[in-house]
Amino acid sequence: MFDYKAAFKSSVEQVRSEGRYRVFADLKRVRGQFPQAVRRRVDGSEQDVVIWCSNDYLGMGQHPVVLDAMHEEIDAVGAGAGGTRNISGTTRSAVDLEAELASWHQKEAALLFTSGYVGNEATLSTLQKILPGLIIFSDALNHASMIEGIRHGGGPRHVFRHNDLEHLESLLAAAPADAPKLIAFESVYSMDGDIADLAGTIALAEKYGAMTYLDEVHAVGLYGETGAGVAERDGVLDRIDIIECTLGKAVGVMGGYIAGDAVIIDAVRSWASGFIFTTSLPPALTAGALASVRHLKVHPELRAQHQERAATLKARFAAAGIPVMESESHIVPVHVGDPVHCKMISDMLLDEYGVYVQPINYPTVPKGTERLRFTPSPNHTDAMMDHLVQAMDKLFAHCNVARRPVAA
Amino acid sequence: MFDYKAAFKSSVEQVRSEGRYRVFADLKRVRGQFPQAVRRRVDGSEQDVVIWCSNDYLGMGQHPVVLDAMHEEIDAVGAGAGGTRNISGTTRSAVDLEAELASWHQKEAALLFTSGYVGNEATLSTLQKILPGLIIFSDALNHASMIEGIRHGGGPRHVFRHNDLEHLESLLAAAPADAPKLIAFESVYSMDGDIADLAGTIALAEKYGAMTYLDEVHAVGLYGETGAGVAERDGVLDRIDIIECTLGKAVGVMGGYIAGDAVIIDAVRSWASGFIFTTSLPPALTAGALASVRHLKVHPELRAQHQERAATLKARFAAAGIPVMESESHIVPVHVGDPVHCKMISDMLLDEYGVYVQPINYPTVPKGTERLRFTPSPNHTDAMMDHLVQAMDKLFAHCNVARRPVAA
Repeated sequence: MFDYKAAFKSSVEQVRSEGRYRVFADLKRVRGQFPQAVRRRVDGSEQDVVIWCSNDYLGMGQHPVVLDAMHEEIDAVGAGAGGTRNISGTTRSAVDLEAELASWHQKEAALLFTSGYVGNEATLSTLQKILPGLIIFSDALNHASMIEGIRHGGGPRHVFRHNDLEHLESLLAAAPADAPKLIAFESVYSMDGDIADLAGTIALAEKYGAMTYLDEVHAVGLYGETGAGVAERDGVLDRIDIIECTLGKAVGVMGGYIAGDAVIIDAVRSWASGFIFTTSLPPALTAGALASVRHLKVHPELRAQHQERAATLKARFAAAGIPVMESESHIVPVHVGDPVHCKMISDMLLDEYGVYVQPINYPTVPKGTERLRFTPSPNHTDAMMDHLVQAMDKLFAHCNVARRPVAA
Repeated sequence: MFDYKAAFKSSVEQVRSEGRYRVFADLKRVRGQFPQAVRRRVDGSEQDVVIWCSNDYLGMGQHPVVLDAMHEEIDAVGAGAGGTRNISGTTRSAVDLEAELASWHQKEAALLFTSGYVGNEATLSTLQKILPGLIIFSDALNHASMIEGIRHGGGPRHVFRHNDLEHLESLLAAAPADAPKLIAFESVYSMDGDIADLAGTIALAEKYGAMTYLDEVHAVGLYGETGAGVAERDGVLDRIDIIECTLGKAVGVMGGYIAGDAVIIDAVRSWASGFIFTTSLPPALTAGALASVRHLKVHPELRAQHQERAATLKARFAAAGIPVMESESHIVPVHVGDPVHCKMISDMLLDEYGVYVQPINYPTVPKGTERLRFTPSPNHTDAMMDHLVQAMDKLFAHCNVARRPVAA
């Protein structure tokens, strides 16, 4: 008979041998003191740390307006939703949140999912059911959830080189003119921090009769006058067909959604297995997200502070000769270029300096581009940056890592 | 060029024409008064209703022990987790919850997912990556999330007739003796309320060298001395390889998990895209679920009350000549046998009697077996049952639906 235990062991060994075995940092955030947290070590002892790699980009996960809304909703209606959207799980705050999100993105309708991952997976696979023969053109650096959704749909797809519109156009031009087509891409790519050419991509979509599917999970709340994302900043909201976002990063809670024409949303709502057959988000989450979005819309100064912090950290690193990578966004990647050094610096930052940042190694990024990825928020102070830059300076010397600036 | 709008429209029209276009009831539950809720109609007016189809089977979604834990966690740590499990999103209460869940199911380890749906999809697809050539034997009535997970893995699979061990054995016997095999099944099937023969299925797995994967989402919290599910009730916990459950039904919150040997959990943790690349559950949810599980373990009287309520409702329906279907569990399906009548009775129950129960039509159940599915909780009073049975009696007369008892 088959030896299951050996097979499971060897699959874990493979991950270890590739240097990508993950040990999760056990953290307890301290409300009101973000980005500070208490780490619990394996031996049970505790250590104060500063989180430098959270996707709670603006600290909204600790904002009183969000926490108050969650408390109120728990007191008013309870904990879980108790069912799927269709079977007793449509909570009033979810309905109100969908209306708010649609309005934010200047679309007719929006649809909540339990996560951004599920939103991408369910929508992209379902579009292939709704539009038989749909050809998907997918950026090479799209997120795993988009890749899985495209793959699960089972239809034809072409991967274009990252942010390479010439390559995209050559693929579009080669496809049948009357076939349904979809360009799937992101605005902010989270590992390099670069931003797609939205207007250029849309122009190609319009020229070749393709729909556009834009993932703004690392942009929503952070770009545009009201925080609706890069599509708002670039003035192209009305020319994107489907916008996909998360409530788990800048919004500070959890969940995902799409926004678009009412008929598109209604079709996905009616056909997507990952939407239909799952328990809805708890009311406290939809109420918290609703409060967060309403706050983000009218507080552009949070976005200005966020950009200032990112620019300052980039400048501080550069001044200290730390090889900060080129990034157009709030994401601050630092090049290490070796998986062992990357993990070692990360471990030493945590153990010796209370600085928590995850190493980003292959396969998340290409070999030779291993990096540390910092995400400063408005709550990261100058003193925290002093401490971080000094620690990085010492460790880069200690590990003898190249100091020259390196382009992404 | 392709006419997208027409294609989306026609896909929605298809759903309508098949009688399965869903209109979600917009509900606001009233904390402390479960199963009561306030429905918001399309015109904005409100109506008091009693929820009869929630999967919050024990009302734990309103229990003070759960709500207090959520409030405390929000005050202590905030709203969202802020990242994936690997990148700053491993919250202490998630770590503690995984340990509690492992212990509950008498397993070495457990792994949280954002939902039970994701737990099934991610685990079943990933097992096929970890065990190349894995042959999956899947019960014909398995949940959509299991079917999707099995399909996404892309490996060989055989569907056996629902709860038919002879058919299962014939398929197992026909497969190569040394191939890796997995039997995927549920304990309580949620639409009929029948319960699988766990010991019989396990005996076949042991005879043919297959692993067992048991979905207990409609059983966890509800069966067994400590509520660990039907596997605990039947004394076979140690003979099931992987148990998959939800935190969104009897536990009253949201999320899913698997429990099993440490090496199995570590392998899935290391390979499952749907686990790795998604924001973790908010701390308030893991803390609320932890409090709920600890409460459920030591309160068997809740399970006794739950079974009593279900038995009473079945007896009340039968006495009134309402065609309640055979069910071994807490689920109370009533046969209607026609999709139009089923929807009509459901609509009239809601509009005229404030009784909220969803119609269950094809394709969720086979044509000709359309039904209403009631899930009485310990909080459903005798007076609520009086009201429900009288309403059903009138509507069955009004719609001229057959009264004879009908077997599932």
